[in-house]
Amino acid sequence: MAQSMMLYWCSGSPPCWRVMIALEEKMLQGYKHKHLSFEKNEHKCEEVKALNPRAQVPTFKHGDIVVNESFAACLYLESAFKSQGTRLIPDDLAEQALVYQRMLETNNLQQKMYDVAFYDYYVPEGERHESALKRNKESLVAELKLWDGYLEKMGKASYLAGKNFTMADVVCFPVIAYFPRLHCPRERCPRLMEYYEMLKDRPSIKASWPLEWLEKPEGQDTLKNL
Amino acid sequence: MAQSMMLYWCSGSPPCWRVMIALEEKMLQGYKHKHLSFEKNEHKCEEVKALNPRAQVPTFKHGDIVVNESFAACLYLESAFKSQGTRLIPDDLAEQALVYQRMLETNNLQQKMYDVAFYDYYVPEGERHESALKRNKESLVAELKLWDGYLEKMGKASYLAGKNFTMADVVCFPVIAYFPRLHCPRERCPRLMEYYEMLKDRPSIKASWPLEWLEKPEGQDTLKNL
Repeated sequence: MAQSMMLYWCSGSPPCWRVMIALEEKMLQGYKHKHLSFEKNEHKCEEVKALNPRAQVPTFKHGDIVVNESFAACLYLESAFKSQGTRLIPDDLAEQALVYQRMLETNNLQQKMYDVAFYDYYVPEGERHESALKRNKESLVAELKLWDGYLEKMGKASYLAGKNFTMADVVCFPVIAYFPRLHCPRERCPRLMEYYEMLKDRPSIKASWPLEWLEKPEGQDTLKNL
Repeated sequence: MAQSMMLYWCSGSPPCWRVMIALEEKMLQGYKHKHLSFEKNEHKCEEVKALNPRAQVPTFKHGDIVVNESFAACLYLESAFKSQGTRLIPDDLAEQALVYQRMLETNNLQQKMYDVAFYDYYVPEGERHESALKRNKESLVAELKLWDGYLEKMGKASYLAGKNFTMADVVCFPVIAYFPRLHCPRERCPRLMEYYEMLKDRPSIKASWPLEWLEKPEGQDTLKNL
């Protein structure tokens, strides 16, 4: 099955990473893939564009099925390989609701992290404002507090949506991993940092760890002053 | 069943509207609800905060299950009432993949619409730049072209993910409805506008049509110069 899959990806992109974790969890090792360089703009290549008019990664193909939005690819993989590997969306409705809730809330954490960590990347020089960056930081601090509170409430050694590893962890871990990497002060989210430590050596996560993070274990310090 | 549901909502909010369409499609009419005013900041009330630490709408409760992210609530409703009302996520894997793909792509269209239509609302006066708004407009025009192309490719009278109404339509229609309302030039997305005409009188959509749009059928013209 995995042999009929093709993933175009860039190293370190949370959307790519979550699809790679899902593939690992569903025991789909051996999928074909092509590692593209963001810096060289390789994700804008014709090969990607032919499958993805947005010219973005991940771009994912399984047989004739193309599904490029990272959350969509994850939902698809769980549905297509429901009984293979880790069950990522539980049958129990209450558990399922929490998985969907935390999964979709991840967009908030991701966007707010980008708005601080990559502010200079996204906002052209003449349009930058200290006031905007300050507001973005406050918003990110509040967001982290929320997630830390979720974990606190779930109790010791919990995953994001309960006692089992689920789709919520698949999609959110790659975002959470940016906080220690970009030197976010531990006190901003002590429970999230415990969660990070608990998950970072999980086989699916280790197997898909960003290549450039292996080469350069120290990231920039754009979250140092959070 | 619907009697054990409670929805807190504000009129015209695409996230609220999509949950209301899902409730209608799943034949869950009769759910309890509370209409809150954005202008009066009523969504920040204690009643909402008790269920939703983000103090946002939609806030949705079914029995003891709380699920507030609009996409999550929609996925939950389809899962909990799979065989009731309209089937919103098909069994066929290829069809399902396209539903997930278009569903999740909706975030792009929504964000880019907000970035133009509500630019002055989201960006404080001293931080506004003509260059940023121009870039946002170009990005929205490209996004609309993409969606128009999707519909063009699907053929006459198609829904967003094929010949049936699906979850992709549930989540995306409330965003699409903003384009005619805010006076977006028809030539920017002629196929989307045909799609809008085809769907606007669908019972689930008509039953959940924003109250303030009924009272004031003409919206602002913030998309007029797109």
